[in-house]
Amino acid sequence: MKFYDCKTAPSPRRVRVFLAEKGIDLETVQVDLGSGEQFSEAFRKINPDCVVPVLELDNGRCLSEVLAICSYLEELNPEPPLFGKTAEERAVVLMWNAKVEQQGLWAMADAFRNSSKALTNNALPGPDNYVQIPELADRGRTRVAKFLERLDSQLADNEYVAGNFFSVADISAMVTVDFAAWIKIAVPDDAGNLIRWYGEVSKRPSASA
Amino acid sequence: MKFYDCKTAPSPRRVRVFLAEKGIDLETVQVDLGSGEQFSEAFRKINPDCVVPVLELDNGRCLSEVLAICSYLEELNPEPPLFGKTAEERAVVLMWNAKVEQQGLWAMADAFRNSSKALTNNALPGPDNYVQIPELADRGRTRVAKFLERLDSQLADNEYVAGNFFSVADISAMVTVDFAAWIKIAVPDDAGNLIRWYGEVSKRPSASA
Repeated sequence: MKFYDCKTAPSPRRVRVFLAEKGIDLETVQVDLGSGEQFSEAFRKINPDCVVPVLELDNGRCLSEVLAICSYLEELNPEPPLFGKTAEERAVVLMWNAKVEQQGLWAMADAFRNSSKALTNNALPGPDNYVQIPELADRGRTRVAKFLERLDSQLADNEYVAGNFFSVADISAMVTVDFAAWIKIAVPDDAGNLIRWYGEVSKRPSASA
Repeated sequence: MKFYDCKTAPSPRRVRVFLAEKGIDLETVQVDLGSGEQFSEAFRKINPDCVVPVLELDNGRCLSEVLAICSYLEELNPEPPLFGKTAEERAVVLMWNAKVEQQGLWAMADAFRNSSKALTNNALPGPDNYVQIPELADRGRTRVAKFLERLDSQLADNEYVAGNFFSVADISAMVTVDFAAWIKIAVPDDAGNLIRWYGEVSKRPSASA
């Protein structure tokens, strides 16, 4: 298998942290998003949606989308479980992973992509050009701030995002918090539960991936 | 178990079609989104994100998010499989389900929610008010049209969205196409593969759910 990555981007980092938690070492290809390598004819054959991460299987099939890649790797390498151990745990992990994506990650992408000078005509990932919408950048920042509150409240009663066990939902949430800091949205000082959780997950060796 | 539904909304329809395919009959509660029942104190206890669908388990746990609900029901009722039968098939189903959501459903939600007169201050689902952004409605329509082309191209080489088997990705895509028609975005006449596929999936008894 071959992993198409970009060291500076948050989406492939979710897979890198997942691989580190599993102890899986894959042949890795860096795709230079900065120079637009994702739009090259060669990369379009790997993923016509022009985004990383991509996992190329030994039979040549290319899997994109973080959840699909992580879920596939979980089936092949069940230990340690990162999607929960029971049907109910797995459902809660998928639920929280979806909430983190929709309320956190996609809102952050709105904030970042609609304000970055480098992305004037690329406000959305993918092969099509979309101009920036400044109101969407503002709305994104508001939503990320609200999401951090929501996460703080969830972590008041739960050691980790989806319960008392570490999961892929924590990976998605940690990547969100780190990228939020990068666009200068800080965790509020009074979000004690979120600060406690972030201290724990960011100390794990996988966090440096 | 108890299913919180709204007959007129596309997201819970994805679960209704899934239940019909599985032959599962659940106690169902209609939530009146038109009158704002999702914002009531009673419903916030069921889902603080104020959206349907929700599956309430017998132990009182409430699961939201379509993928989490369908995945849980698949574990409890494996036949007929709607997430594929092998690790690779399951990954491709999750990949395509994510693409349908991000490129199709969320784009359509942008188009609809940023233009509907009834949603002036509710351009996003959930408990917080967001004003409409007209450019986002236009961008959403453009993206849905592009997504229908993308789907047509995928269906040139595949009987169903994720391969030669019916799956939850087809359900998500069918709901997208039907809702697109509702906001007057039609399948183009030259999208022969999409028209062929839609004819097949919309003839299944589950499509009326």
